[in-house]
Amino acid sequence: MCGIVGIYNHPEAAKLAYLGLYALQHRGQESAGIVTANGQKLVAHTQMGLVADIFTEEVLDRLPGSMAIGHVRYSTTGESVLRNCQPFTINYSRGSLSVAHNGNIVNAGRLRAEFEAHGAIFQSTIDTEVILHMLADSKKRDLVDRLVEILPQIKGAYSLVFLTESRLIAARDPYGFRPLVLGKKDDSFVVASETCALDLLEAKFIREIEPGEIVVFDKSGMKSLKPFGPQKRAHCIFEYVYFARPDSIAFNRNVYEIRKGFGQMLAKEAPVQADMIVPVPDSGVPAAIGYSEESGIPFQMALVRNHYVGRTFIEPEQAIRHFGVRVKLNAVKQMLEGKKVILIDDSIVRGTTSRKIVKIVRDAGAKEVHLRISAPPTTWPCFYGIDTPRREELIAAKQDVESIRKYVTADTLAYLSTQSLYWFEKQKPGEWFCDACFTGNYPVGADEIRHTIRSETGTLLTARLH
Amino acid sequence: MCGIVGIYNHPEAAKLAYLGLYALQHRGQESAGIVTANGQKLVAHTQMGLVADIFTEEVLDRLPGSMAIGHVRYSTTGESVLRNCQPFTINYSRGSLSVAHNGNIVNAGRLRAEFEAHGAIFQSTIDTEVILHMLADSKKRDLVDRLVEILPQIKGAYSLVFLTESRLIAARDPYGFRPLVLGKKDDSFVVASETCALDLLEAKFIREIEPGEIVVFDKSGMKSLKPFGPQKRAHCIFEYVYFARPDSIAFNRNVYEIRKGFGQMLAKEAPVQADMIVPVPDSGVPAAIGYSEESGIPFQMALVRNHYVGRTFIEPEQAIRHFGVRVKLNAVKQMLEGKKVILIDDSIVRGTTSRKIVKIVRDAGAKEVHLRISAPPTTWPCFYGIDTPRREELIAAKQDVESIRKYVTADTLAYLSTQSLYWFEKQKPGEWFCDACFTGNYPVGADEIRHTIRSETGTLLTARLH
Amino acid sequence: MCGIVGIYNHPEAAKLAYLGLYALQHRGQESAGIVTANGQKLVAHTQMGLVADIFTEEVLDRLPGSMAIGHVRYSTTGESVLRNCQPFTINYSRGSLSVAHNGNIVNAGRLRAEFEAHGAIFQSTIDTEVILHMLADSKKRDLVDRLVEILPQIKGAYSLVFLTESRLIAARDPYGFRPLVLGKKDDSFVVASETCALDLLEAKFIREIEPGEIVVFDKSGMKSLKPFGPQKRAHCIFEYVYFARPDSIAFNRNVYEIRKGFGQMLAKEAPVQADMIVPVPDSGVPAAIGYSEESGIPFQMALVRNHYVGRTFIEPEQAIRHFGVRVKLNAVKQMLEGKKVILIDDSIVRGTTSRKIVKIVRDAGAKEVHLRISAPPTTWPCFYGIDTPRREELIAAKQDVESIRKYVTADTLAYLSTQSLYWFEKQKPGEWFCDACFTGNYPVGADEIRHTIRSETGTLLTARLH
Amino acid sequence: MCGIVGIYNHPEAAKLAYLGLYALQHRGQESAGIVTANGQKLVAHTQMGLVADIFTEEVLDRLPGSMAIGHVRYSTTGESVLRNCQPFTINYSRGSLSVAHNGNIVNAGRLRAEFEAHGAIFQSTIDTEVILHMLADSKKRDLVDRLVEILPQIKGAYSLVFLTESRLIAARDPYGFRPLVLGKKDDSFVVASETCALDLLEAKFIREIEPGEIVVFDKSGMKSLKPFGPQKRAHCIFEYVYFARPDSIAFNRNVYEIRKGFGQMLAKEAPVQADMIVPVPDSGVPAAIGYSEESGIPFQMALVRNHYVGRTFIEPEQAIRHFGVRVKLNAVKQMLEGKKVILIDDSIVRGTTSRKIVKIVRDAGAKEVHLRISAPPTTWPCFYGIDTPRREELIAAKQDVESIRKYVTADTLAYLSTQSLYWFEKQKPGEWFCDACFTGNYPVGADEIRHTIRSETGTLLTARLH
Repeated sequence: MCGIVGIYNHPEAAKLAYLGLYALQHRGQESAGIVTANGQKLVAHTQMGLVADIFTEEVLDRLPGSMAIGHVRYSTTGESVLRNCQPFTINYSRGSLSVAHNGNIVNAGRLRAEFEAHGAIFQSTIDTEVILHMLADSKKRDLVDRLVEILPQIKGAYSLVFLTESRLIAARDPYGFRPLVLGKKDDSFVVASETCALDLLEAKFIREIEPGEIVVFDKSGMKSLKPFGPQKRAHCIFEYVYFARPDSIAFNRNVYEIRKGFGQMLAKEAPVQADMIVPVPDSGVPAAIGYSEESGIPFQMALVRNHYVGRTFIEPEQAIRHFGVRVKLNAVKQMLEGKKVILIDDSIVRGTTSRKIVKIVRDAGAKEVHLRISAPPTTWPCFYGIDTPRREELIAAKQDVESIRKYVTADTLAYLSTQSLYWFEKQKPGEWFCDACFTGNYPVGADEIRHTIRSETGTLLTARLH
Repeated sequence: MCGIVGIYNHPEAAKLAYLGLYALQHRGQESAGIVTANGQKLVAHTQMGLVADIFTEEVLDRLPGSMAIGHVRYSTTGESVLRNCQPFTINYSRGSLSVAHNGNIVNAGRLRAEFEAHGAIFQSTIDTEVILHMLADSKKRDLVDRLVEILPQIKGAYSLVFLTESRLIAARDPYGFRPLVLGKKDDSFVVASETCALDLLEAKFIREIEPGEIVVFDKSGMKSLKPFGPQKRAHCIFEYVYFARPDSIAFNRNVYEIRKGFGQMLAKEAPVQADMIVPVPDSGVPAAIGYSEESGIPFQMALVRNHYVGRTFIEPEQAIRHFGVRVKLNAVKQMLEGKKVILIDDSIVRGTTSRKIVKIVRDAGAKEVHLRISAPPTTWPCFYGIDTPRREELIAAKQDVESIRKYVTADTLAYLSTQSLYWFEKQKPGEWFCDACFTGNYPVGADEIRHTIRSETGTLLTARLH
Repeated sequence: MCGIVGIYNHPEAAKLAYLGLYALQHRGQESAGIVTANGQKLVAHTQMGLVADIFTEEVLDRLPGSMAIGHVRYSTTGESVLRNCQPFTINYSRGSLSVAHNGNIVNAGRLRAEFEAHGAIFQSTIDTEVILHMLADSKKRDLVDRLVEILPQIKGAYSLVFLTESRLIAARDPYGFRPLVLGKKDDSFVVASETCALDLLEAKFIREIEPGEIVVFDKSGMKSLKPFGPQKRAHCIFEYVYFARPDSIAFNRNVYEIRKGFGQMLAKEAPVQADMIVPVPDSGVPAAIGYSEESGIPFQMALVRNHYVGRTFIEPEQAIRHFGVRVKLNAVKQMLEGKKVILIDDSIVRGTTSRKIVKIVRDAGAKEVHLRISAPPTTWPCFYGIDTPRREELIAAKQDVESIRKYVTADTLAYLSTQSLYWFEKQKPGEWFCDACFTGNYPVGADEIRHTIRSETGTLLTARLH
Repeated sequence: MCGIVGIYNHPEAAKLAYLGLYALQHRGQESAGIVTANGQKLVAHTQMGLVADIFTEEVLDRLPGSMAIGHVRYSTTGESVLRNCQPFTINYSRGSLSVAHNGNIVNAGRLRAEFEAHGAIFQSTIDTEVILHMLADSKKRDLVDRLVEILPQIKGAYSLVFLTESRLIAARDPYGFRPLVLGKKDDSFVVASETCALDLLEAKFIREIEPGEIVVFDKSGMKSLKPFGPQKRAHCIFEYVYFARPDSIAFNRNVYEIRKGFGQMLAKEAPVQADMIVPVPDSGVPAAIGYSEESGIPFQMALVRNHYVGRTFIEPEQAIRHFGVRVKLNAVKQMLEGKKVILIDDSIVRGTTSRKIVKIVRDAGAKEVHLRISAPPTTWPCFYGIDTPRREELIAAKQDVESIRKYVTADTLAYLSTQSLYWFEKQKPGEWFCDACFTGNYPVGADEIRHTIRSETGTLLTARLH
């Protein structure tokens, strides 16, 4: 997954971009980068690591100009090496161009092969590089015209910010897979993946960059283009389930409220008698509060998260056995002892982590552990930017709920229904969302995706693909 | 504040010490150190920074031996420079000796002056160094005899672990100011500030190292000495209020439960009609849950904490104004809008942070903000190891509740009563605790403390000192 | 300037490449890189800094395979930033390809513009990238056929090593501007800029890679191609004057001997009565020994070089005045006091350094300072890989010998004649060499060069260009 | 070995100290440190590594004040760890005190044991710490009086600079083992190990700090004390042979001239017919020039030194065999081929390096290799600050010249006679010098030294000790 930010017309553009990335750190902890423009040239700094470690004052001071774009990355495509860090900067016939991308391009492989067949060279293994080749290859004169020309050829999810010597451009795919919002801070414009970045910058949330919209910021102000015709929406429901920060607005709704509603629906759908509701922190908290409110069973923070995880953690190798999730979570034994516990988490991926957490709770003395997942079973990999494992590694792709329950050693296990996932929509629930990870309904590039999944997993696991 | 750990008889002592410090990182983020012993010599590594950043595999590999002590430090005395990092290691007539100290010695200044008057030299500015001088200066032959001789001369708070070439020694002051627990992992002994360190090591909690107890670990096993006569206890109540981790046992009680009880008592003492209870994360969470349970008002996690704070954070200087608490906390506006909010925090120190948090909640649209503090007003500085500002900087030392309320711009403000602080004790509430930060009743070294406070603040603020 | 190395068929290819670069460090101190291949894929590590600082054991251990190429760089074209470091690695239709380049391509700008006009993107500002575009763009199937096709289009100086998943290829421009030698170590092949790299690897010097030769190393052994017809040679005479190490063989002759001969010729051409010959260390030493032998005047090492220069050196800014050359050189006052001194250096570029050195010698008490330069005046910039300033900054391009003498404050000044430069060649002196820096006779790309110089300096300084 | 510097009364004292250490880097490459004083307090920065790598602008900016002392260290006593870096800074009854020491204290072990017996603690393993204990222990009021009191109890070699909040003090042992000079730069005073530091600072050389002299710099100016009575001198002759820089004045004579004289005497004492004189760079150069002048045989720089050695150098371990001296030196084969060569070096310690160098020259094709050493055989370890191996490792302590010749595989081998070592002194040659490394005549602490050597080597090798 990734987070992006763009700043236009601020004397300290690099510093604002830095703060924006800081607020978006949850969207990617592997690498970060900022590119600034001062009217004449682009200056870049990209590095493996965390935002606050990379951008020292000395580094920020070397990034001049009133425009900036930034990127935090957790690899979806491409190895985790320096040359895959974004923003990605090139020179072409019209000057310099830098791009930061959140999403994933489904037909990148084919597009890339075509370019290579015509003699192009690639320097990274990320799908974003192909967009730059397409832009450079276009015969249109103006960069915006080029964008309008090439975007329809790109299948997949993309929230993009581009920077040239004198312009900032934001663009979003017509399905609106990934969030992208527009803010204003005095005379400066801010574009960011989530509103929590606007909040930290004390910028005002104006509106979403709309699906299929291209917004250009330059000397003549802000200009909006909508080159795509009317189009089905496909917002990523998993942003609500897990990815976005609860204090953010995404797809025009507050994430905390949505997530709390998941918990309430879950309490209705899968009630169980118990002494307490315990969330797996931090993503399970709002759903647990919702479950508690609905059921009347007390909410307890009986799993404590170590705040210093996320950095390099050396795991002792020999005499000491595997630590895994234990360095992140510890149980409050005195609360759990002899109690019937409802454990709330947002998803089960491979099942191994859930199994460990159930064990921690049980080892702490819980009499019963009822696991409730605030989303449907994750049965299909994401091809639109979320870093999920291959289908064969997804436990729910291969096993039914009862056998998953046995594997994770819970007393009972229940998932939220797909229907309840859309509790917040009165009409046509789910119509505006992509829930392919739960349903296998891939809204774009289904052919390419089917091909990829088949080649990885064989026929058995692709049966449901249509 | 500081955290300490000791490992005896484990082939990977350095790695266990590292894990222990990792679990105790909340007790000090400024520097960390580990010293190991292999029967022949001591090997040390101390550094400014966080445990997981300092102790790479390469560093751990250079720390051989089956015994180790470790320390995390947030400066209470002494500047924050490398030479003040602990464990502190010396050579003296009987060989090498290393010590890690949690606490603060009230009469360190006088003891140090005496040593210097007799020609001693000091290389750090930390109070711990004087203990080593006293040990080296003792005429007793054995280190344990020396300890027994010198400890009665030391006034103040100390949980200590010592390491020699072949012995690990743990000691705790007779008042038991700071926690110190004993655990066992197979044939290895573990000593640590809190039980959360034992949990991560998968060591079993045996018992507390008792106030006034000296425990020696060597080839002949574990030996306990209690050189002090019966003595009043003075456990630090602030460990319950704020410092210890909620999943820890401290002073034989679970911190989460105690803290939740504070919230329940607060709901009884200072009820107010409202739409929701919102904790200041993370320390305010258990009290907020208690307040919610008692009052029936829903608990909401409407302030979100940025998990990546704690590292170096460069604050932009010029055009952008001061960020302060905003980089740590953000409000969930959609939850707070138009609502009456009870905000739960554990203390108000200078008042500036509370003021900013109230503003964040109000800016998010809250109609009313009722601030509830799950402890009494902090009116006196701590001289036993907690890093509090000088008395004149404590807002509650100078202003009454109403004027504090005005300063922090809350609609109402209430503190927990000192009496309710001891809700968990049926008989003689508070008798076993130090609550000097709330009452000015300093259990040891009152003369020295009075002198220090007077010289800093003048007579006015010392009036209540007795 | 740059240095390159290639290793074929050695189990520790990365380590041999590292040693080779270490021996070639004098050819570039700005950045260094090694790329290895193990039959399947390429692994790269490039970094700003010195070879011995970059390639720790940990880094070398991450570079697997039996083939490697390496590069040390002192920028000639392109800014000094990470993305301009070499070897330069790409993916194209035929797989992965990495290249290390010593030299400079005169028509790179035009070639690049053509590619950009056809939609290509560039990620570095170095001229080497255009070679990769040409290779990827070629319609030939095999990489070697592609090389044969494109090399004739490239004007300029190039000694190249290429690495693919399974082949190492070395190539040299038909003029043979830059040196490139072939060695053998048991069953392994070594290609390197200078023989001093072979010496450190204990590899046997076989022969030069010939001008215009392409040598391919793969499973079928070593294969030589000579796609160019008979061609004028243009070896860089400045390699003899300054650049190559004295212990190397370059262009089939030993550099020390050549350089010593320059000193002997200089003694014949420009004798002067004096007490001692003093070289400017280290490059002036062999010529000074030659001058001393010829003249009978004693050689003295009366200027001492600080061996720790070359690293970052912080120059105090305020109260202390400019240090310049003083941190590199110090005079032995007691030797120079009251003496007539002949100072031997290899060149005068801007004149500022020479002026400072003369001052150091005079301040040390020398009665007379006679400056002798073991090469003709540097009057034209190099466009074939040596990092010279623009023509207008070359003192000898604008002033005659007498006014240079005044500027550097020497008592007398003499340069070596162009004729004597070729003392080592009996027949057709200079015919096989490029001496454009002394004569303005640019053997290839003269049109492009003339254009560049004119646009930089105006007509006055280009008068001699023909 | 070590180098020291002191700056008094300069607004950029830290920067001057840095430059001074930079010029003294040859005296110690293991660690470096600077301590500054601004009238109120001392600020220190010490670190493992090289001067130019440690002292970035940021570090220098954090070292305020107009007084500074600095130190470069190559360990003689004590392990190479951070806590052994100098300057060494303490607090004692009279305030703060920092010291930088060049030399070695022979009776440090006994003094230290006495202090420890009285309860003192030691934090480093360096002998310098005992001086601080003695100073702190003295009953005199003033630091200078304390120095006068304690220095007579210290046996050994010491050139010292002390720094307090307001004073800089330089002191030198009465034998004058190590050099220490006084310079002036406008109104500032500079103290340094060698005059090459004064040259870089553009300070004027005033005079030596005299053996047995204490010089105090404070507000009242510069004051000299000579508490010792008339005393035999014992300047270290090895400073002339190897250690000091040739451009320095040490013991009132220029090192280059002395060293060149060694070569001339060697040519007279041990002539041999040959084609060329080749120095082992860099220390052998002046003696080789002297030998060449006296013998009339041409001097050639046919061994080339790699300037980038001195940094960390990773030596490949497996398939590649030991490199040793080869990474530092390479031969100019074309010069040596078929030639009779006189190789000039300054000493043979263990014999292993000399053996490798002879091999390099012979492998390069030399017909004969005649090794000439510009000093007598090194037969005894140094106890006054030079880092020599234990006696049993010194080849000349165990073998005669003929068997050393065989070991190093030279055709002939000759050393300089002890008599010729003092060619520069007309009267009483050697009377003012310590040549214990050649003669075993230890001028001070002979009892302690005899004891140490005996305990290390047994009786056989101590026979000559008297």
